[in-house]
Amino acid sequence: MSDIQYLINQINQFRDERNWRQFHNPKDLAISISIEAAELLEDFQWISSEEALEKNKENIKEEIADVLIYSLMLCDELGLDVKEIVEEKMGKNGEKYPV
Amino acid sequence: MSDIQYLINQINQFRDERNWRQFHNPKDLAISISIEAAELLEDFQWISSEEALEKNKENIKEEIADVLIYSLMLCDELGLDVKEIVEEKMGKNGEKYPV
Amino acid sequence: MSDIQYLINQINQFRDERNWRQFHNPKDLAISISIEAAELLEDFQWISSEEALEKNKENIKEEIADVLIYSLMLCDELGLDVKEIVEEKMGKNGEKYPV
Amino acid sequence: MSDIQYLINQINQFRDERNWRQFHNPKDLAISISIEAAELLEDFQWISSEEALEKNKENIKEEIADVLIYSLMLCDELGLDVKEIVEEKMGKNGEKYPV
Repeated sequence: MSDIQYLINQINQFRDERNWRQFHNPKDLAISISIEAAELLEDFQWISSEEALEKNKENIKEEIADVLIYSLMLCDELGLDVKEIVEEKMGKNGEKYPV
Repeated sequence: MSDIQYLINQINQFRDERNWRQFHNPKDLAISISIEAAELLEDFQWISSEEALEKNKENIKEEIADVLIYSLMLCDELGLDVKEIVEEKMGKNGEKYPV
Repeated sequence: MSDIQYLINQINQFRDERNWRQFHNPKDLAISISIEAAELLEDFQWISSEEALEKNKENIKEEIADVLIYSLMLCDELGLDVKEIVEEKMGKNGEKYPV
Repeated sequence: MSDIQYLINQINQFRDERNWRQFHNPKDLAISISIEAAELLEDFQWISSEEALEKNKENIKEEIADVLIYSLMLCDELGLDVKEIVEEKMGKNGEKYPV
């Protein structure tokens, strides 16, 4: 099994043990990604990257993880293949910004 | 090679071909995750999940991909192992929200 | 009439001429504030404050205005007095961060 | 004195009593607006507008106030007249979305 599918399975098991799927509609998952992205950004508020990493490294790790967890949840909910959509977007970015 | 590492390699190659690493400090990567998360959210603005998927499915795919791309870039920049930080955060969430 | 009430009246008139009030529920207004805040942030992505102001001053003005417009709309929708809630929050901040 | 200028004066006095102006560069103020907008959005996460207002009305007031405070700070920092930029943006919106 791929690493990505392994993580999605862990996340789904966690969700289902708590009976949370009922709340996880795509709109609220998108809202949740924005909220977690802002919590990550808060670790850098008023300070430089260097100071942020010195003071908040542990929390930065957790907030990136939260962004990834909700993003994987949304992919799974919409039946999207993570590797496929990332490669497709990279292809499109390559056309937009040629070397 | 894991599929996560495969994607990170693709992303790094894309970045290095354009000589963009100089811009990719952690603070601006965190900013970029927030911006892409908001572009994803825009696909759901004023409408229900159902209407959003009907109207904006293609763009939703692209915006989730952008959130993932910047999140993987930031993990790579900080030397974080994606699988490890997601599993650690799931463990912590499990303590916070027991079954 | 206060200048805040004057702006709210202008905004309400604009909305009502387009029959948009039906879409303006508080949750989607909160979503809209986040989207506009991210569009403002995009003017500063990858660059310093100085470069941002040099390159994007006109757009920065417009994006701050959009954040303010949706924030005033939400206040009006919830029957909140802008001056009152700002003063109350300043009072609370003063207790949290004494001089 | 207008209501808006009165609030800006209160905010500036608060900032100067704490010697915080040194941190308040435009880029970090834009970051702060996004963070506060996401905290507002958090009050609506997973629930409807109605449930949010029932459960979180007090906090919603505070988070809108924070968005307004940072937006007014940024206007003042950039020498922008709030009434003017909002009216200009409404004019532009009117051209984009004719009645």
